[in-house]
Amino acid sequence: MSLCVVGSVALDTVKTPFGEVNEALGGSATFFSTAASFFTEVQLVAVVGDDFPPEHLAFLKSRGVHLDGLQQVPGRTFRWRGEYGYPLNEAKTLDTQLNVFAAFRPALPAAYRDAEFVFLANIDPALQSDVLRQMNRPKFVACDTMNFWIAGKRTALVRTLAQVDLVVINDGEARQLAEEANLVRAAARILSWGPKILVVKRGEYGALMFNGKTIFAAPAYPLENVFDPTGAGDSFAGGMMGYLSTQQGAVTDAMLRRAVIYGSVMASYNVEAFSLDRMRSLTEEAITARYRDFQALMAFDPLA
Amino acid sequence: MSLCVVGSVALDTVKTPFGEVNEALGGSATFFSTAASFFTEVQLVAVVGDDFPPEHLAFLKSRGVHLDGLQQVPGRTFRWRGEYGYPLNEAKTLDTQLNVFAAFRPALPAAYRDAEFVFLANIDPALQSDVLRQMNRPKFVACDTMNFWIAGKRTALVRTLAQVDLVVINDGEARQLAEEANLVRAAARILSWGPKILVVKRGEYGALMFNGKTIFAAPAYPLENVFDPTGAGDSFAGGMMGYLSTQQGAVTDAMLRRAVIYGSVMASYNVEAFSLDRMRSLTEEAITARYRDFQALMAFDPLA
Repeated sequence: MSLCVVGSVALDTVKTPFGEVNEALGGSATFFSTAASFFTEVQLVAVVGDDFPPEHLAFLKSRGVHLDGLQQVPGRTFRWRGEYGYPLNEAKTLDTQLNVFAAFRPALPAAYRDAEFVFLANIDPALQSDVLRQMNRPKFVACDTMNFWIAGKRTALVRTLAQVDLVVINDGEARQLAEEANLVRAAARILSWGPKILVVKRGEYGALMFNGKTIFAAPAYPLENVFDPTGAGDSFAGGMMGYLSTQQGAVTDAMLRRAVIYGSVMASYNVEAFSLDRMRSLTEEAITARYRDFQALMAFDPLA
Repeated sequence: MSLCVVGSVALDTVKTPFGEVNEALGGSATFFSTAASFFTEVQLVAVVGDDFPPEHLAFLKSRGVHLDGLQQVPGRTFRWRGEYGYPLNEAKTLDTQLNVFAAFRPALPAAYRDAEFVFLANIDPALQSDVLRQMNRPKFVACDTMNFWIAGKRTALVRTLAQVDLVVINDGEARQLAEEANLVRAAARILSWGPKILVVKRGEYGALMFNGKTIFAAPAYPLENVFDPTGAGDSFAGGMMGYLSTQQGAVTDAMLRRAVIYGSVMASYNVEAFSLDRMRSLTEEAITARYRDFQALMAFDPLA
């Protein structure tokens, strides 16, 4: 089934303890689309400047990502510069140049309006709501957000949350959003505002999924080499939503649990190299193999 | 089968965001023994002063803990004073009075020397080795340690590690001990020194178990009310070793995985109240119920 993502396409300059990369392909919609592209075709909505390197467009096309919704406008592409130390969990932002992204107004091509699965990546919550107004009753909507919007646009954000099925945010954001230090109670509060499901991403510690009745806990895949965490969260969401969009019928808890594992698989691969480099050589066999690795990682005998 | 623990018995004064408690029963051997007592009889080796409240001895006896190895000597009992803020993971030590514990020399009663399972709680690694010299070929030995010994008694500690089957430490200690930020590589280095198994405790994020071939990841049980984390690590070890000591034959990976879950169950209950208070009313039914909760928490469909 069809999957649409609205978010950023950016050029990232990243330094980690293991190396650095200059103006590499990045952005929430890029990581999401690329991860999801291993499961389905993705309709991308974003904006880039006239300086955007054509080879990045070619890469996204090669992954089957539809670019009719990617506006290319005069000006410079969104640029982000960040650094990771130890622990690798937290990025230190050194510079953010929104450039053409500052005036981004998502406009969905007619062909995208019937998408059944939608991911609203981390953009202004007012724009997230605006995207939903352009859609024809999508089957399943997920969104991300960040501390900047939680602090500065709380009312608009809570309005967006009321319209989505799934919220995918990190643990610090969940605590800040709910104004509650305990994650179980923070989750209950966020779910009380409307979304059916909350997935809390915890970086190297994995993810927790709450639906108001049960909790699912997935570890992160223990990696010997975490090279660059940039895009891990969006790759996670891409794997999750990409997998869900291949499933028929109502979205069940069992489907969502499998989706969390596929999200964890995609995030674990993405951090193995800078930018999207690991995705360039990734195979379906490798995805399946790591899903099985998660089975082995989490297996123990049930009681009789 | 028989289980012996050597460690501390202390009086803890603890402040958390939810309250405080003054000179409550604490100490690594106490938390360990009490958690393990739900699985087996425990032989305790420790020291207390002549000020130690008799009701604490009565409590340990009521849990079936053997106290022949508990020396009571003139002087004051070991006292620890600590505080937890948010996040609750990290204790801030305000005061440590070793008192009679400073001169502690473990002396195993003859009846303990044939114990098949041994836990060397966090004490001077030279004393840990000394305990092993007093034993008659135990079947399975586990140990804990802390940053103080890693920094100050590294050579003695590495000598102890070479003699144990299982090391149970937290993630910061594992990184410090291995001098390696990446946990997977830190685990490989620690295992190269002799122990067969390493369990890394990560507080609210659960535990990872490494055996050089496979990894097992268990989440912590997501709790709405974490009241006091003191003793969580020793309760974890107590649940793990208590369960293992009930099993026949060689210790297998499947047994160890079940043991990690039982350890997680005991730790999750222990943090629900100050000191050992939750353990006082805990039942076997509640332990079984939470083991099943872990099954539900970690379940997802395997690939065909």
